Amino acid sequence: MAPSQQLSLFPFLFQETLLLALMEGSTERNCSLTPPYLPATVVNTTLRLQALRAAMIPREVLAYIIPAADAHLVGLAGPRDARIAFMTGFHTGSAGTVVVTAMKAVLWTDSRYWVQADRQMDCNWKLERDSFIGSITDWLLNEFPEGGRIGFDPFVFSLKTQEYLNADLAPGNLLLTSIPDNLVDGLWTDRPPVPPLQPHPSPGPHHRTWQMKVDAIRMEMMANPYKPTALLLSALDETAWLFNLRGNDIPHNPFFYSYTLLTMEEIWLFVHTERVPEDLQAYLNSSCVQSMCVQLREYDAVRLDLAAYVLLPGVKVWVGTEYTNYALYEVISAQDKLVTSSYSPVLTSKAVKDEMEQRILRNAHVRDAVAVIQLLMWLETAVPRGKETELSAAHYVNECRSKQKDSRGPSFETISASGPNAALAHYSPTNETDRKLTVDEMYLIDSGGQYLDGTTDITRTVHWGTPTAMQREAFTRVLMGNIEISRTIFPSRTKGVNMEMLARRALWEVGLNYGHGTGHGIGNYFGVHEWPVGFGSNNVPFTEGMFTSIEPGYYKDDDFGIRIEDVAVTVPARTKTYLTFDTVSLVPYDRKLIDTTLLSEEQIRWLNRYYNTIRVHMGPELDRQGLRREKEWMLQNTEAFQTAGSSRALSSFTLSVAALTVALLQHVL
Amino acid sequence: MAPSQQLSLFPFLFQETLLLALMEGSTERNCSLTPPYLPATVVNTTLRLQALRAAMIPREVLAYIIPAADAHLVGLAGPRDARIAFMTGFHTGSAGTVVVTAMKAVLWTDSRYWVQADRQMDCNWKLERDSFIGSITDWLLNEFPEGGRIGFDPFVFSLKTQEYLNADLAPGNLLLTSIPDNLVDGLWTDRPPVPPLQPHPSPGPHHRTWQMKVDAIRMEMMANPYKPTALLLSALDETAWLFNLRGNDIPHNPFFYSYTLLTMEEIWLFVHTERVPEDLQAYLNSSCVQSMCVQLREYDAVRLDLAAYVLLPGVKVWVGTEYTNYALYEVISAQDKLVTSSYSPVLTSKAVKDEMEQRILRNAHVRDAVAVIQLLMWLETAVPRGKETELSAAHYVNECRSKQKDSRGPSFETISASGPNAALAHYSPTNETDRKLTVDEMYLIDSGGQYLDGTTDITRTVHWGTPTAMQREAFTRVLMGNIEISRTIFPSRTKGVNMEMLARRALWEVGLNYGHGTGHGIGNYFGVHEWPVGFGSNNVPFTEGMFTSIEPGYYKDDDFGIRIEDVAVTVPARTKTYLTFDTVSLVPYDRKLIDTTLLSEEQIRWLNRYYNTIRVHMGPELDRQGLRREKEWMLQNTEAFQTAGSSRALSSFTLSVAALTVALLQHVL
Repeated sequence: MAPSQQLSLFPFLFQETLLLALMEGSTERNCSLTPPYLPATVVNTTLRLQALRAAMIPREVLAYIIPAADAHLVGLAGPRDARIAFMTGFHTGSAGTVVVTAMKAVLWTDSRYWVQADRQMDCNWKLERDSFIGSITDWLLNEFPEGGRIGFDPFVFSLKTQEYLNADLAPGNLLLTSIPDNLVDGLWTDRPPVPPLQPHPSPGPHHRTWQMKVDAIRMEMMANPYKPTALLLSALDETAWLFNLRGNDIPHNPFFYSYTLLTMEEIWLFVHTERVPEDLQAYLNSSCVQSMCVQLREYDAVRLDLAAYVLLPGVKVWVGTEYTNYALYEVISAQDKLVTSSYSPVLTSKAVKDEMEQRILRNAHVRDAVAVIQLLMWLETAVPRGKETELSAAHYVNECRSKQKDSRGPSFETISASGPNAALAHYSPTNETDRKLTVDEMYLIDSGGQYLDGTTDITRTVHWGTPTAMQREAFTRVLMGNIEISRTIFPSRTKGVNMEMLARRALWEVGLNYGHGTGHGIGNYFGVHEWPVGFGSNNVPFTEGMFTSIEPGYYKDDDFGIRIEDVAVTVPARTKTYLTFDTVSLVPYDRKLIDTTLLSEEQIRWLNRYYNTIRVHMGPELDRQGLRREKEWMLQNTEAFQTAGSSRALSSFTLSVAALTVALLQHVL
Repeated sequence: MAPSQQLSLFPFLFQETLLLALMEGSTERNCSLTPPYLPATVVNTTLRLQALRAAMIPREVLAYIIPAADAHLVGLAGPRDARIAFMTGFHTGSAGTVVVTAMKAVLWTDSRYWVQADRQMDCNWKLERDSFIGSITDWLLNEFPEGGRIGFDPFVFSLKTQEYLNADLAPGNLLLTSIPDNLVDGLWTDRPPVPPLQPHPSPGPHHRTWQMKVDAIRMEMMANPYKPTALLLSALDETAWLFNLRGNDIPHNPFFYSYTLLTMEEIWLFVHTERVPEDLQAYLNSSCVQSMCVQLREYDAVRLDLAAYVLLPGVKVWVGTEYTNYALYEVISAQDKLVTSSYSPVLTSKAVKDEMEQRILRNAHVRDAVAVIQLLMWLETAVPRGKETELSAAHYVNECRSKQKDSRGPSFETISASGPNAALAHYSPTNETDRKLTVDEMYLIDSGGQYLDGTTDITRTVHWGTPTAMQREAFTRVLMGNIEISRTIFPSRTKGVNMEMLARRALWEVGLNYGHGTGHGIGNYFGVHEWPVGFGSNNVPFTEGMFTSIEPGYYKDDDFGIRIEDVAVTVPARTKTYLTFDTVSLVPYDRKLIDTTLLSEEQIRWLNRYYNTIRVHMGPELDRQGLRREKEWMLQNTEAFQTAGSSRALSSFTLSVAALTVALLQHVL
């Protein structure tokens, strides 16, 4: 999990916020006083709001919408795109939407950020304690019953979001009006520049050169029955994958600002050209214009260049509808110029890791597990001494990762959450909220690393004292969900969304649930959430060689939070024609929290097999790194669990698989 | 299951046909001889094909497509709509698509019908052994590489089908051309008339008068944010439900040809007005024009009347996109006149049965189970005597049903299939294919009844001799699928498609699967497949009070077929806020085919609870009907299964439910 993951079910789980308990009156604004009370942490936004409203007048819009997204709509936005922070002063949150009208200025954000927003915004701003898009459109419909124009920057809206807003607003005669020049950027004089860092070839090993990838994608374009003449790549990991390039423009994500337009004859790479060094130009053959030469074009010219391309006779541009921004979509929206699919062939190709990619990504998880094992072992002795906090634990695991080979920092901001803080699914500690770790509370740590060969993401929940019966049962049922997904056998091309209830079923049986998705794709040194793999309704069906997180949880408001997250890869099952998951995260679960009496025989057997796998991979690695105590800790924590007396289920299952596969399957399937 | 259910996965399971084994050369055409050999069973279609081609010329279409559907797109088509049979001579199949061009005439149909088609079609016709829509569009694209117009009757195409065809054909410049006057009807001089039978008020008990229903639906129209002014009902069960009326126009389905246009001020009922008797006119208040008076309009005027309505200023018509025919959709296709949802509020309201509807539908299943128990008991003694066949068994169960109170005949053509015939999932016996029942083969019977209080649908698979190990294992795994769906606990509004893998999982574990859906809605004296409930991706989420079939299967080509189908209703689970299924079909499974060593403790406990439920309901009913031997048979066949030694799982599960619900759930949820 990482902060941008969609909350899909049961939003009420997040409607309460523990942060309220941490409030002190003097740190938050009080706009009901005259004059209003403003803490020192707020920013005076009066002038910038005046300027924005002045810019709205010639555009004839009643309101201007500012989302948190950037033009590439995948992953976190960089500092250049922190328009909400600039406009509102609220700068410590990564999610929210702003609407400014002639008279009002409103921020919608979710419960994680309510306190922070009240500490950082002045009284020009109203805080709406809600993050659902429908509440924004309801507000607009209510505010402007007569109808009118609502402005937005199409670069920072996906076409899905545009469609959704439009569907809500159009019945009230509110007309969404595209303004491709961002009104905030026009008045943001000290907007951070594009960082000086340069794109660089990804230093990991690659079977496939960028030329091989371009060839393969062009083959997919030719196979498309709608005969696209060009493929538009607007997600940052599309261009990064295609050219085997990485950058540093986005926190935690090794990307650089870019678009690609790939035709049969040419390759246009839109970047900030001034920062492309000569060796990279040579790598890209950028001095020529043949079909295997990359022509460098100015990043900011993408809309105009695309519009010019679309005017050519007979052209058709293929775009992925799940993530392409509306600014590019609207210039090719003529139906005869447009070919759509949910994801581009670059993203669907990238979703399937080849043999080498699988191997190096597994290797990254072995090294990553060393760091997590170091953390868990250290906490066991450090926490009872009473000095450690959420922040110090997050710092420790980051340090451990940084010592591993090819480390490139955390893959997202570590979620280190003790007791009730863990009930906020996306909580990350700050100096203000930092909580001491104690033997009396459960502790959840969700963290990951970037390595040159792969990206990791793992969550463990532990208790250093005596968990309650409820905590053990809830933890065990979350674990059952993780195991049931992991061990299931399914035909290739089964959709994750059609299996993910297995992760919830043991919780559902006792009326519990969790309010977030069950997993997301992950890969070889990209963003920690790699589209289009996962368990959501907009993810692609599973085929062999896809990596996904599996991360059920349970959150009890004001009390504790549990999440167990592993990364797994789809592999052939024993029945050969079908698939199953192989877990590549290699860190044992807290034994104290597992009630084996709730587990089925199959679940215990799966757990023992997994623990054996941890031993097989982590033993030699810990030896190699000379980590003797860590190895002992690992061995202690991966001892096999006793199965209950009966071996009935085992024998019948084994028998059935053997008998059926040998005797019958070959002529059935 | 019934014949029109969509095959969704693994179509190859149906590509083989046992019927080939029954072929005799002289009964099928041989078009490769000169002159061709034609059996006596073929129809000479030369003149009607000439007439159709003549009608195509002024329409300037290269090809004309004739599907098997009628204008209401739900359930089977009646004899008036058997256009394929009229054109081709192939009259014993219910599925297929015809394309006629100036030079060619082709029927696409699935493997069930290949032999019959070759017996009934003359050599004007080519048979394409495939039923996938993509193969038809591929054929057209190949036949007309230059592009051109392709004609179709929009009344017999859903807008989904039109969209699908259009998406396939448009890239090849083939333009789908709507021809609202059916070209076949124009030359079909002896087309069967609308039957003389009259619509009649449904005689079952009703809580809700049609006026109450109209009120409730108008409330839903007002609540729709897009402010529809009218609701168009084009499915036959929509009008039947709304007015508490039934008819006899369609085989096995108590419907009458009708459309309804419901506005806030008026109710237009499109029927063949000449057959509406006075008492029915009175029932509908059809002599007035106020908002609670039903204005009778001519059935054939629906398109023109709707078009005239749409011309009124400010109107918007709400249609269900899953089933509305294209002829009506295209007259309101202007976006500002159209409000869409997958299903109309009539269908989504109808999906939730109220307390009385639930009670009487359960009662129908009690009486229906008497008939199925009678059949199964009789077959046990009759089959070894060697005289019974698929047809005689189907006849027997139909007879048994007809003796039950309020019986109105079978709800679909009984699937009575022995040995390899059962591997054809939708096989129904004919005189030509009828197979003797023996103790050496498995036997599958899928049948259902129409009763004034409810519709039933149940499948049992039995073996009267000694099943093979493979048959027992496969049957048990199908049963495990049925049980796993039935016993699962889930939050209200969970989609069936996100749970249905539970029905396949035990099969998947050993590399098996089945190639059809897992269930469909069913209700109070309607069609046996009641939209929009079920386990498909286009079904609505489950809420309390929905009835669905649960029907996993397994089919081994040329050998045997297994399906276990029960009807179940969604009810509150023990955890109260969540739901589970309660099985209302009340017939035990063949004990001989159940390998209890494969079942989990929970599955055995579910089975024993279910068998106890059968005893509780069927014991008194069999007593009431004086069926002593049947009661003995039922008691023998519902004896509890032994659970394995361990009671570990039981105790922990019970404990967890009790402890959690009492101690914790009330303040978690």
